[in-house]
Amino acid sequence: MEKLEKKLGYKFRDISVLERALTHKSSTKAFNNERLEFLGDAVMDLVVAKYLFDKFKGCPEGDLSKLRAALVNEKSFATLARKINLGDFLYISLAEDNNNGRHKDSILSDAFEALMGAIFLESGLDEVEKISISLFEKEYKNISLDALVKDYKTTLQEITQAKFALIPEYKLISSKGPDHNKNFEMGVFLNGIEYGKAIGRSKKEGEQKAAKIAIEKIKKGKI
Amino acid sequence: MEKLEKKLGYKFRDISVLERALTHKSSTKAFNNERLEFLGDAVMDLVVAKYLFDKFKGCPEGDLSKLRAALVNEKSFATLARKINLGDFLYISLAEDNNNGRHKDSILSDAFEALMGAIFLESGLDEVEKISISLFEKEYKNISLDALVKDYKTTLQEITQAKFALIPEYKLISSKGPDHNKNFEMGVFLNGIEYGKAIGRSKKEGEQKAAKIAIEKIKKGKI
Repeated sequence: MEKLEKKLGYKFRDISVLERALTHKSSTKAFNNERLEFLGDAVMDLVVAKYLFDKFKGCPEGDLSKLRAALVNEKSFATLARKINLGDFLYISLAEDNNNGRHKDSILSDAFEALMGAIFLESGLDEVEKISISLFEKEYKNISLDALVKDYKTTLQEITQAKFALIPEYKLISSKGPDHNKNFEMGVFLNGIEYGKAIGRSKKEGEQKAAKIAIEKIKKGKI
Repeated sequence: MEKLEKKLGYKFRDISVLERALTHKSSTKAFNNERLEFLGDAVMDLVVAKYLFDKFKGCPEGDLSKLRAALVNEKSFATLARKINLGDFLYISLAEDNNNGRHKDSILSDAFEALMGAIFLESGLDEVEKISISLFEKEYKNISLDALVKDYKTTLQEITQAKFALIPEYKLISSKGPDHNKNFEMGVFLNGIEYGKAIGRSKKEGEQKAAKIAIEKIKKGKI
């Protein structure tokens, strides 16, 4: 367990809390990590919400929610769990062990949440924030809207190629504001006809938004 | 706004954060409370999770989740919002105002979450915990599993009366353990035939669990 603590950069004062966090319900122990997982789930929701709130100050609520959904899910937590080799430290039944239990996303993700719940109980939100955000940032080298949120440009191109055998083109329509705070209005065109335009804080953002508009028009049968 | 602060028992250091929390998106202001609501939603999830985790130490995760669902929802937050007359302080459009906006559950609940998000930003989790739990406890005089979780005994009786014109009977099957830590095995009977039995830390809990088993049997067509 010291190895795990080293990986985490956190030393438990009460080792029994750590033990509980590592105990899957299949284990024969008299306790398991389900209650801690319940707590840790809410802890991680808040840690990630606060992180995104602070990092993306200009982002509307809808985008923050999408970003959070991309970070807070079983697959993502299982990835963080693997970074600290959490599977090696779990108490699980022999049957579950033989069933590849130490490598299952669901078991790893639950144990990761339980572990964060345990640290929260002992040391509070700030400590969980420090540890989990550092793991996130190691995994997602550059947490950004572009990387995490659904890529509308790619989606649009897939649709237009399949439907019309056309590749969308993007053009700058106008730009406004001083250099440090410029806005770009981008348009998306099919065969020279504009099907959406939108303003972004970067050309790429404008293009993504314009692509989103075009996708919606296609879905409504307007293209 | 001082009135609201008095009701809350909290004084904002930065009044602009409070103003933002009170601003519905229909308002003509350049900002609104949606981002704070995103944050506050996660804050309240954790506050309630931690409260239940501490209060119901013997409760399995499934029951904690049910309890939380009963406390963390639009209707419940709207009720807390009304306790502090939050509707009176909102910035909303004239149209929304005429449309009864200050009394809508959705608008009140969102503003309540935003308000808790704002307090969290300024003063951290402990302060939100103090304020919101005090509001909860005033509203739900006795937060308990019995009061909040779906009442299986009532449900079962409704079903058996409609289906068989029978009222379920409950009997003590056995009890075990020392007085301070007794378990009760309760059975549920229809026309003298047992349809479910379960162990609880109280007779009532045993009965509820037995009723739940009987409901499941009926649903599966086994009764």
